[in-house]
Amino acid sequence: MPRYALKVEYHGGPFAGWQRQADQPSVQEAIETALAKLEPGPHTIAAAGRTDAGVHALGQVAHCDMVAEWDAFRLSEALNHHLKPAPVAIVACASVPEDWHARFSAMQRRYLFRILMRRAPATHQAGLVWQVKHDLDVAAMQAGAAHLIGRHDFTTFRASICQSDSPVKTLDRLDVTRVETPHGPEAQFDVRARSFLHNQVRSFIGTLERVGAGSWAPDQVAEALAARDRAACGPVCPPQGLYLAEVCYPQDPFA
Amino acid sequence: MPRYALKVEYHGGPFAGWQRQADQPSVQEAIETALAKLEPGPHTIAAAGRTDAGVHALGQVAHCDMVAEWDAFRLSEALNHHLKPAPVAIVACASVPEDWHARFSAMQRRYLFRILMRRAPATHQAGLVWQVKHDLDVAAMQAGAAHLIGRHDFTTFRASICQSDSPVKTLDRLDVTRVETPHGPEAQFDVRARSFLHNQVRSFIGTLERVGAGSWAPDQVAEALAARDRAACGPVCPPQGLYLAEVCYPQDPFA
Repeated sequence: MPRYALKVEYHGGPFAGWQRQADQPSVQEAIETALAKLEPGPHTIAAAGRTDAGVHALGQVAHCDMVAEWDAFRLSEALNHHLKPAPVAIVACASVPEDWHARFSAMQRRYLFRILMRRAPATHQAGLVWQVKHDLDVAAMQAGAAHLIGRHDFTTFRASICQSDSPVKTLDRLDVTRVETPHGPEAQFDVRARSFLHNQVRSFIGTLERVGAGSWAPDQVAEALAARDRAACGPVCPPQGLYLAEVCYPQDPFA
Repeated sequence: MPRYALKVEYHGGPFAGWQRQADQPSVQEAIETALAKLEPGPHTIAAAGRTDAGVHALGQVAHCDMVAEWDAFRLSEALNHHLKPAPVAIVACASVPEDWHARFSAMQRRYLFRILMRRAPATHQAGLVWQVKHDLDVAAMQAGAAHLIGRHDFTTFRASICQSDSPVKTLDRLDVTRVETPHGPEAQFDVRARSFLHNQVRSFIGTLERVGAGSWAPDQVAEALAARDRAACGPVCPPQGLYLAEVCYPQDPFA
């Protein structure tokens, strides 16, 4: 069957997460329902990352199998038509080989996390950032983040419900930048790895926020990592600042 | 009575505009209602710009008169507390002289307009941009905009219901920039004048969009201006990409 890769942007707010669930709305269900308008289902699509409730995507990647040969642009237009008014958009679509897999072919996942640092409540950015009322020390957070780079046992930063076979992962990048926006200063995190444990990014950010606020010294991040103990983690931060930004493949299917 | 200047950020979506109306929600009413929780009213606040329904603000400026002397920071915190959950936030507050006036002391208003140029429907940015499905020629729009700079009779770009005494205004700046965002390319307009006619910015942008799309030559903007005829204007663009970004005073009250 012809297979198509879909690059998907969504607002996580209305959804219980990416993955289809029996009794709650999911992004997967929204797209599968739109696919069923084009060709009788049931459709089952696979995605590079199963984002949690409230987590956004700028560049989630999924694939679907169709009976007919579709022009990729026409397929994305038809899906966007049927997805309305859900805040889910197919921003790119490409024909891929039948053995290409959105999840298993992926070489790197990139997440963006946005912390808005100001006292006044967010208006336009509500639901799109994690807001903290105090300014955070970005240099201290970067120093703390440096301890996490590389191959480690990340048990400390792993949700108890995580189903990954191993807690050992390689973190390729964790950069923190202060960005001045029209709404105030943000701390933006660029987090990259081949794959992540459940809640790993939010465990990182929640811990680093404590460093930025001065409650933790940067070196305590190394101690927490070495403890290999969930109890050594800082608080897990809320989901609404997190974006699955990009998924990388040996060859970009959308190029 | 002690007077306070308020810098106000809001999402225009839920409001019929800035100005209080008998039967529809307004930003002015939201703030006056919050003020009445602090000191018995009625309160009447004045603002630098009366934004239309759906128009946002990053830096609207208003002033209020109080009976008690308030610490400016405490006043903003108390107002933000009572404004919740409306998407209106007091982002700065300052004590000002009793003859200072948010509207009449203002020397320049600055508007931002955002056009998102992409086919796939906006998700995170829905309601925060005007989306067009085609790419716009930013250089052509800048060439068209150049004809509007300076002192002119702007009858062409003025709503029929405009109450200004004169259609003659001086446009200080109208810059167009292409900005790459995580959601796709935007054309962002920076529009500055001491004061504006009703619908002037949206008439500019709607006309310049026609230039960017290639339907109008840049020089046709000069012809439309010279016509001094509302019928010569391009289509007035929708409100949701428009932000009252900043109001300038001889001395910044919030500095």
